[in-house]
Amino acid sequence: MYANDKMLSGLDRARVVGLIDEHRKDWSLQQAFYLDPDIFALERELWFPRQWVIVAHSSEVPEKGSYVIRQLFDEEIIVARHGDGEGDIAAYYNVCTHRGSRLCVKDGRGKLLVCPYHAWSFRLTGELQTDIEPAAAGLTDLLRENGVANARIVARKNYLTKANWKLVLENFLECYHCRPAHPEYFRVNGHVKVTAMRDDYNASEWKQEIDAWHSVIGDAEFHKGVWEPGDLDTMPYAMHRKPIGSGRLTLSDDGQPVSCLMGGRGKFDGGENGFRIGRLSFLSAPNDYLTMFQMIPRNANETDVILTWLVDKDADASVDADKISWMWDVTTIQDKKITEDNADGIASRAYRPGPYTPLESQTAFFIETYLAQMRTLITGERRDGDEAWAAPSQLYASPQAAGKAQKNGQATS
Amino acid sequence: MYANDKMLSGLDRARVVGLIDEHRKDWSLQQAFYLDPDIFALERELWFPRQWVIVAHSSEVPEKGSYVIRQLFDEEIIVARHGDGEGDIAAYYNVCTHRGSRLCVKDGRGKLLVCPYHAWSFRLTGELQTDIEPAAAGLTDLLRENGVANARIVARKNYLTKANWKLVLENFLECYHCRPAHPEYFRVNGHVKVTAMRDDYNASEWKQEIDAWHSVIGDAEFHKGVWEPGDLDTMPYAMHRKPIGSGRLTLSDDGQPVSCLMGGRGKFDGGENGFRIGRLSFLSAPNDYLTMFQMIPRNANETDVILTWLVDKDADASVDADKISWMWDVTTIQDKKITEDNADGIASRAYRPGPYTPLESQTAFFIETYLAQMRTLITGERRDGDEAWAAPSQLYASPQAAGKAQKNGQATS
Amino acid sequence: MYANDKMLSGLDRARVVGLIDEHRKDWSLQQAFYLDPDIFALERELWFPRQWVIVAHSSEVPEKGSYVIRQLFDEEIIVARHGDGEGDIAAYYNVCTHRGSRLCVKDGRGKLLVCPYHAWSFRLTGELQTDIEPAAAGLTDLLRENGVANARIVARKNYLTKANWKLVLENFLECYHCRPAHPEYFRVNGHVKVTAMRDDYNASEWKQEIDAWHSVIGDAEFHKGVWEPGDLDTMPYAMHRKPIGSGRLTLSDDGQPVSCLMGGRGKFDGGENGFRIGRLSFLSAPNDYLTMFQMIPRNANETDVILTWLVDKDADASVDADKISWMWDVTTIQDKKITEDNADGIASRAYRPGPYTPLESQTAFFIETYLAQMRTLITGERRDGDEAWAAPSQLYASPQAAGKAQKNGQATS
Repeated sequence: MYANDKMLSGLDRARVVGLIDEHRKDWSLQQAFYLDPDIFALERELWFPRQWVIVAHSSEVPEKGSYVIRQLFDEEIIVARHGDGEGDIAAYYNVCTHRGSRLCVKDGRGKLLVCPYHAWSFRLTGELQTDIEPAAAGLTDLLRENGVANARIVARKNYLTKANWKLVLENFLECYHCRPAHPEYFRVNGHVKVTAMRDDYNASEWKQEIDAWHSVIGDAEFHKGVWEPGDLDTMPYAMHRKPIGSGRLTLSDDGQPVSCLMGGRGKFDGGENGFRIGRLSFLSAPNDYLTMFQMIPRNANETDVILTWLVDKDADASVDADKISWMWDVTTIQDKKITEDNADGIASRAYRPGPYTPLESQTAFFIETYLAQMRTLITGERRDGDEAWAAPSQLYASPQAAGKAQKNGQATS
Repeated sequence: MYANDKMLSGLDRARVVGLIDEHRKDWSLQQAFYLDPDIFALERELWFPRQWVIVAHSSEVPEKGSYVIRQLFDEEIIVARHGDGEGDIAAYYNVCTHRGSRLCVKDGRGKLLVCPYHAWSFRLTGELQTDIEPAAAGLTDLLRENGVANARIVARKNYLTKANWKLVLENFLECYHCRPAHPEYFRVNGHVKVTAMRDDYNASEWKQEIDAWHSVIGDAEFHKGVWEPGDLDTMPYAMHRKPIGSGRLTLSDDGQPVSCLMGGRGKFDGGENGFRIGRLSFLSAPNDYLTMFQMIPRNANETDVILTWLVDKDADASVDADKISWMWDVTTIQDKKITEDNADGIASRAYRPGPYTPLESQTAFFIETYLAQMRTLITGERRDGDEAWAAPSQLYASPQAAGKAQKNGQATS
Repeated sequence: MYANDKMLSGLDRARVVGLIDEHRKDWSLQQAFYLDPDIFALERELWFPRQWVIVAHSSEVPEKGSYVIRQLFDEEIIVARHGDGEGDIAAYYNVCTHRGSRLCVKDGRGKLLVCPYHAWSFRLTGELQTDIEPAAAGLTDLLRENGVANARIVARKNYLTKANWKLVLENFLECYHCRPAHPEYFRVNGHVKVTAMRDDYNASEWKQEIDAWHSVIGDAEFHKGVWEPGDLDTMPYAMHRKPIGSGRLTLSDDGQPVSCLMGGRGKFDGGENGFRIGRLSFLSAPNDYLTMFQMIPRNANETDVILTWLVDKDADASVDADKISWMWDVTTIQDKKITEDNADGIASRAYRPGPYTPLESQTAFFIETYLAQMRTLITGERRDGDEAWAAPSQLYASPQAAGKAQKNGQATS
């Protein structure tokens, strides 16, 4: 909506810079960052347009001429396949250049996009405002190995969360809450021994589990994690590998496969690849299915949290979508609740920023990065040093998290 | 609501004048004019109170003592007949002078208006704030000839449109969209040959149709159109005459009459008189029924579009309201949809003003007039020259529109 | 919500002081005080935190470890009984000090409050932000005499009123509207002879009724009224006594008792004690039941009006809650309607402040007090003289109201 889109005055911008400068490192944000529509307007003007996000899966525009309409930061985007090549996909704003009407009102297929108002027509290759940028090439191979391009969608669900988008990410980036809040997730995932608790005995158990897994899958697979911090011009992304644990083959209730292997893999190895693509999109990849996460800010108080589940495009038609979506459906329903309770409490006049514990270091890292980028985008000043861009001391469930310290900027070795 | 009513600071007013001065002639408005609640507040403070609008039909207060409550620009207005004379009608704000309570909660009849809070009482002739001004006398005869004063209401419907009021008018003032968007209207109305398309063959066909009609109805009837541009102090209005075309007698699905003749006319002549009364009210008058249009801004994003259908007060009680309302009901439902799609697209950050084509000249004229008046109302400066007040080059379906150029300020000859 | 919580700039504060200084004594407020969210934000920041209000009845936390969650000015408050002593009750903001989540999602009982997010735990005696202050001791005895501490709740109802909280109070503080708006209340209560009308004959009738009642109950009971004006640091409160009248024993439809006597009283005396506790809470106490009134501002346009009915804790289990709540239920439903109509009219551009009549002197007094306090809170200046704090000339249904003038500051003699 426009209210979020209007330009803030210089005075208002200076106020936000003042709030950024008052921030206490490794403490949660001041209230205004979670609630103030003016700050959301600034994020929408400056920060969101710099973010790389997943808007759709290529299987959603299967043929030349196919197009779909997707919501993104209060905007409608048309994603269209205009040719037969793998990369012949473009994204446009769904706005006619004549008098601004919506061009497409539903997904479709055709040679032209015809405006329903005065019948102005546009080719799929352009003439409209485009807003797509190529993502990092370094990520493509990793996605391919997990069969992402050869997948088909089996389920999608929007867990609209009445909370500022940063609260959604702060929650998603730490597992400290997994023990009180996620009984199913806590039972299934071995990494919670170090990500949800601080206990030497547990850490040593997890270390043994990782070592055992390493000996099974070998060095080449074990060292595949990447950490690309990105900056305002390049896309940040990360991938880590870990065993699910306890002999489980995939992220299902009983640990047994729920679909066929993906990405040309020869057998189940009990691992999960976890991706962060940009700062707002994620991908969870056990051996036989994918969960794609899109966190899309709607306004200062609401965030769309859209999960999409995919299996190999040649998987049996009878795969059980409920079994496939079980782990992240039950977990995201719980996250929606605790994040909304968090938002509710933060709106109180009693709210004060609180300290992140070491188990919340990725959350703290995200907050520092966000603030440093916002400051640069508002003032134009790029700070000396790049501490803000360094990796957090504890990466989410990375092998290194199992007890030993992490060097800055070296998430994997 | 109050939010729309609050006074903008001098700084905010200067910003709006700046936006006005940035306007590119004959292009659609910048986004803020369609979406910014502050600009709507300014319109409500300065522009709306200067507009003449239809609030009710005299048949709605049939006897001395009758009163009705009507919504107008977020205000409630009491329209009361306080005497037996034709002009003994007054309009008051529905607000008690004691502590501000609503006075009347529903339409009624009585000697006094009694406040339900503390029982303060008011005569129908006054003591309350009034806000009515006499409309142009020049219009009265034209309305009388169409039997407007001797009509009764057969149907009313509110097509609440989620769009800024200017988008509603921009749509209503051009027929370029009639071909893609209004199949029924396009089929029935001959004038679309020049108002919805630019094609010499069609224009020449329409010219022949007008000439044939001229020879049937004679000069006196043919030259009845008027164009009163109005300014900030006098009411603008316009009337044009045209044949419906193709031998149709009225604006009905099959072209056949739907009620008896109005206004003392002796026979069906296949014509339609179209009125603009002020800038926000319209009247369509084929020979046997009237459609009254009230466009009432509710807030920056919503507009009430109220249509009322009337027939002669002595028409048969069994007239078919569905047949009477058919043309404008089906058309207004379509207009609501395309106007809302327009509003939706305009809210995008991709929206940029676009050019009006020659088929949208009345729309462009409305926009120029609106901007010139807003500028004068904000700054107090009246611009030299009065180009802004000149008639558009193509008047809606006027006889002159049939192929020949229009002189400035001379819509009829 | 945050929008109401944000700090207004110095410029905006100066604007409000300007509006305060424009106020005309004994006239209703300018529109902005009833509608402007900025002024509500200022009230929420400065004025509401200075107000003493009823948040719960002690019977709602009956045992050590019991706690309840209550809404207060858009905040959630936990009221907990942490010990066995009568005063071992504390109130906390329902906000975790870690990352701000809601701590409790429903009423409960336990030794610790455990946050559902990361399981941080808090003892009932503290560690959280507290916000309770002791109320005036002078009031305690008066409440005890009416059996307030030994009561149990039989009914509760929220009459959410879509009006600014000041309109709710302005209505509650005068009975001028009782004749047109409250037929049941007008029939039952003798005091309306002087509070709802200005008529010497009625006033003299009411004087006789009071004199007769005085002779029955004696001096000690008759002179129990108090008037503690309070200021920004001390709690204002008031209590007055009056006969219900016409031989009625309690505030019921037929005047007959609806429960057993409260507070150790030996017999029905036909009187009602009326309390004002702070500026937003009230208590009506005939001999056999209590009605507790909580007016809680929700935002600039909505106010929770929560009524709770209580009887003696040992009263028969079969008491009829409908009979007990009858008087104030029927009256508050009517007040909700007229207050909402008032709010609706005040939003019109035709609204102008109007004069309070002498029958509305307590309403006028509240408005003067509110404005004086707001001015002091914004500017820090305490005005010379304390006229603003003096008692109104006519106290609600006090014995002195029966025809004779009232001295400043001496509500009872």
